[in-house]
Amino acid sequence: MTGPRTPYQELERRFGRLARLRDAAGVLTWDTATMMPPGGAEARAGQLATLRMLAHEVLIDPALADFLDAAAADRSLDRWQQANLREMRRAWARATAVPADLVGRISEANSRCEMLWREARENADFAAVVPALSEVLSLVRERADALAAALGLEPYDALLDGYEPAGRAAEIDAVFDDLAAFLPDFIDRVLARQAAAPAPLPLPGPFPVAKQRRLCRRLMEVVGFDFTHGRLDESHHPFCGGVPEDIRITTRYAADDFMPGVMGVLHETGHALYDQGLPREWRHQPVGEARGMGLHESQSLIIEMQACRGREFITFAAPLMREMFGGEGPAWEPDNIHRHHIRVERSMIRVDADEVTYPAHIILRYRLERPLLAGDLAIPDLPGAWNDGMKALLGITPADDAEGCLQDIHWYDGAWGYFPTYTLGAMAAAQMFRAAKRAVPEIPEALSRGDFGPLLGWLRTHVHAKGSLLTTRELLTEATGGPLDPKAFEAHLAERYLA
Amino acid sequence: MTGPRTPYQELERRFGRLARLRDAAGVLTWDTATMMPPGGAEARAGQLATLRMLAHEVLIDPALADFLDAAAADRSLDRWQQANLREMRRAWARATAVPADLVGRISEANSRCEMLWREARENADFAAVVPALSEVLSLVRERADALAAALGLEPYDALLDGYEPAGRAAEIDAVFDDLAAFLPDFIDRVLARQAAAPAPLPLPGPFPVAKQRRLCRRLMEVVGFDFTHGRLDESHHPFCGGVPEDIRITTRYAADDFMPGVMGVLHETGHALYDQGLPREWRHQPVGEARGMGLHESQSLIIEMQACRGREFITFAAPLMREMFGGEGPAWEPDNIHRHHIRVERSMIRVDADEVTYPAHIILRYRLERPLLAGDLAIPDLPGAWNDGMKALLGITPADDAEGCLQDIHWYDGAWGYFPTYTLGAMAAAQMFRAAKRAVPEIPEALSRGDFGPLLGWLRTHVHAKGSLLTTRELLTEATGGPLDPKAFEAHLAERYLA
Repeated sequence: MTGPRTPYQELERRFGRLARLRDAAGVLTWDTATMMPPGGAEARAGQLATLRMLAHEVLIDPALADFLDAAAADRSLDRWQQANLREMRRAWARATAVPADLVGRISEANSRCEMLWREARENADFAAVVPALSEVLSLVRERADALAAALGLEPYDALLDGYEPAGRAAEIDAVFDDLAAFLPDFIDRVLARQAAAPAPLPLPGPFPVAKQRRLCRRLMEVVGFDFTHGRLDESHHPFCGGVPEDIRITTRYAADDFMPGVMGVLHETGHALYDQGLPREWRHQPVGEARGMGLHESQSLIIEMQACRGREFITFAAPLMREMFGGEGPAWEPDNIHRHHIRVERSMIRVDADEVTYPAHIILRYRLERPLLAGDLAIPDLPGAWNDGMKALLGITPADDAEGCLQDIHWYDGAWGYFPTYTLGAMAAAQMFRAAKRAVPEIPEALSRGDFGPLLGWLRTHVHAKGSLLTTRELLTEATGGPLDPKAFEAHLAERYLA
Repeated sequence: MTGPRTPYQELERRFGRLARLRDAAGVLTWDTATMMPPGGAEARAGQLATLRMLAHEVLIDPALADFLDAAAADRSLDRWQQANLREMRRAWARATAVPADLVGRISEANSRCEMLWREARENADFAAVVPALSEVLSLVRERADALAAALGLEPYDALLDGYEPAGRAAEIDAVFDDLAAFLPDFIDRVLARQAAAPAPLPLPGPFPVAKQRRLCRRLMEVVGFDFTHGRLDESHHPFCGGVPEDIRITTRYAADDFMPGVMGVLHETGHALYDQGLPREWRHQPVGEARGMGLHESQSLIIEMQACRGREFITFAAPLMREMFGGEGPAWEPDNIHRHHIRVERSMIRVDADEVTYPAHIILRYRLERPLLAGDLAIPDLPGAWNDGMKALLGITPADDAEGCLQDIHWYDGAWGYFPTYTLGAMAAAQMFRAAKRAVPEIPEALSRGDFGPLLGWLRTHVHAKGSLLTTRELLTEATGGPLDPKAFEAHLAERYLA
């Protein structure tokens, strides 16, 4: 380098270090879930806490604010550099808005509540976790207020923005209201139609784990996963971790059913392709990161739900499945396997829900966490409100709170404002898949040959390569011709489940 | 905590953070060797460089020097705290002695030379690496001079001190001269005796890797390894990594011979037991760390060489081996297996050498790296000097430099002053094993039952639990009654190979 660094260059240096700290933490988090012996937990927590603290210190260093101000006056920055600077400022604003003391209290309260929640869920005893959850919520409010003041946002939006940058409850209200009006009647019709047809033939197991693993690896390669830049392992909760050059996907296998393991892997592969397709030249800079949780989920769902549960791909995949497990007879025909893949059921547990009922679970949670945060719904009244919501949206009532408001870790662990991103992603996936097929008409036929090239090409250009250059709304508009619109998702459901 | 931190407490906080950074790097280094796909290498290098840089910055922060000075005046520190402060100052002195610019140039020159060395070794072409090795040596000298000036040591001792704290060439000269006088004639006698007896019966393979792995895990448990606090995996070069609460041992299996894999695992298990036995209350502080490379090697060798290659342990282990591989006949008798374990051979390659000839390889390297560093031997003259030394010490001459002075990575990667620690460890192991058996006479009988408790108890008390409280010399004197003395090692060899 010639001459001293400009303020912008100094910012790039500092954020580059921050990114590498987070990358290191990403690999260690993968190790914690897959490799670490139980006795290593405490030491690992200390390592991760230190890396997080050092990353935080990069952001709250008073000199950083000065560099941000000085760089803002730099007229030589190009479009990507300007976007990078905008994302740097966003990260700085969020990190400095919350006092260190509050961060510490939140972390402690979350850990305490999460522990109590595990026991409460085990015993279906919501009352046992009410005090701890109330404490968590009270600190979440404090944090939301601090963020809201610093960012000039409503408190809920300030939390949402941490997962879905520039996301706003007012926009979510509109699309969720539309979907909530659509779903109950639609679910009735799908279930009536499903009941009128014979049930799909059962697929006889057992399915040895070693064979499931081979099938998963094969399908990952088909979709476009590069094993010189990643791995597939096992963990209790499937996830996609690691770093873009070294993606660590995990799944879980059940010996009596290979579908959940395989579809889980395809879902995580969608996440992986997004990370692997992020702009290489902006690696380790904020503008080079994935845009947000909603868009990330859209990339997992466009692979899993739009492409891999579609009839075209099943045509290609069914023979591979049959061959791997030595299956015989009509149960292994693509049509029958497809019917397993699009089976719909009213059920209590979100993570087991199908594509059609899943959004109802999300809308329920979104419509509860907003009044809870605002103080319009009290924690002790949550079980009743939950059950009323389930009745209204899905027509069923949990037998107890374990399959009701105790089922998800999120609230108990302090993750408020996160839930809507699942369904924002599902809607964006449908909208993108439609746009991709319009732009590249050979996509369906290619999928029926196991060729993801045309779809992936469109995603790389219109989504992955954008990093955080645009807002999610801008990106969707450029890629699909308009902002998020629930109609594409509803049309997709209608075509798949009623056509 | 009540009141502000004292300078000593502030130092503990800072060194605690440093230790966690190094722990994180330790786990990532294990991942690099065992799990990482090839495409992850560049990203990993960036993560590790950032962690190393942050650790270095903890040490060179000017405030640290002030805290060290202020803490030196603290009269309230107990013995362990004073030793901790001494070790902190040592780490600070070494880190601040070498200018950052030189550290960078060294790192680049080492990487460049290491790459050229791989090719040069492949082609047995020493000339191809002479310029790069000359550059490395020139920078090693610069570093040694900087350290020597800061620490008040001779240049070689300043390098040695990085691996063997408080180690001095003058002391090594004395013990190595003694050993060098002992070995040639001793090796002649061992080989003559060995030649006069029939060769051990071959152990017929193949030995499936899955069974070798199970045998290794079983023997690790026997020795005392706690799998709730560690793992066994595979890598190209066996090592013991991770952190004391989560030790990651690796080995390499050959299908046609199970001995190297098993003995490698037992060697690394010795290293692991040392780490697992370090004083828990001083974890993450300098005084809680292992004392040095020589002592660490003594702990691997007391397990592998002293205990596990001894006749008592083989009596216990031979039936396990036979059972695991379904072996039959006299080849699987303990006596025959023991004869495999103590087979001696004059050979070119250090890492394949047996217990008797290994020290000759080390003495050769020590006697070359000292004049090389001092400028009394020129790099182009190294091959000739190497071959002369091999002839004198072992009576054999390498066919080419690939099995001569190109065989080890150490010098080419900048590790000068490291080699002697292997044999210092071997000698210390013999001395400790003798002292342990004197203090706890039931040790041999216990080993013949696969009970490592008595030996491990002695090691925990006299070595592991001491951390870095004492110098190696003090520790050896307290534990065995005197400083390092080659006679114990020579007596051990005589008893095992000539008795």
